[in-house]
Amino acid sequence: MVRLIALYDTPDDPAAFDEHYRTVHAPIVGRYPGIREVRATRLAGLGGRPPSHYLMAEMAFDSRADLDAALASDAGRESGRDLRNFAQAGVTLFVADDGAALDA
Amino acid sequence: MVRLIALYDTPDDPAAFDEHYRTVHAPIVGRYPGIREVRATRLAGLGGRPPSHYLMAEMAFDSRADLDAALASDAGRESGRDLRNFAQAGVTLFVADDGAALDA
Repeated sequence: MVRLIALYDTPDDPAAFDEHYRTVHAPIVGRYPGIREVRATRLAGLGGRPPSHYLMAEMAFDSRADLDAALASDAGRESGRDLRNFAQAGVTLFVADDGAALDA
Repeated sequence: MVRLIALYDTPDDPAAFDEHYRTVHAPIVGRYPGIREVRATRLAGLGGRPPSHYLMAEMAFDSRADLDAALASDAGRESGRDLRNFAQAGVTLFVADDGAALDA
């Protein structure tokens, strides 16, 4: 599996962020062609400190090609535009390919 | 499950980083009490850009209490000290608790 990972910075209004993510953004992501699984998890810090990011969204595909095709699709472009509606604090995107595992 | 996530910044010498991670750091992490799964994945960027981080390590536990106990254990303290031996570029640590999922 290949995961697109989005790390969202802490929003000014977490309740409004959550509501937009759940009701608007997640349904767009659900329309990505080829998407296999989505997981969005609120983050916590260590040692009593706040976490560096607020939410981690993981979107799984069968391959990097499927991931790239999803981002280039209508739903992919729509989700990119939607970021400006709720992710003003910032978002970091990267790809984790299980085929690039660093085995112990 | 609760995951401790470590995002490593890009090292000056990736080959040396990989070697140290595989042969020294991963075996220490493997001695964490209560650890259920470890996954270390090299990251890739989007749109031809390099990724924001080099490697994502995910360490899964049954609970946040188990995670905290692992970090407070001898192996946990040893792994923390070992970071200065190979993670000079920087590392970001946070916790993703599947119980804190943001359901769509």
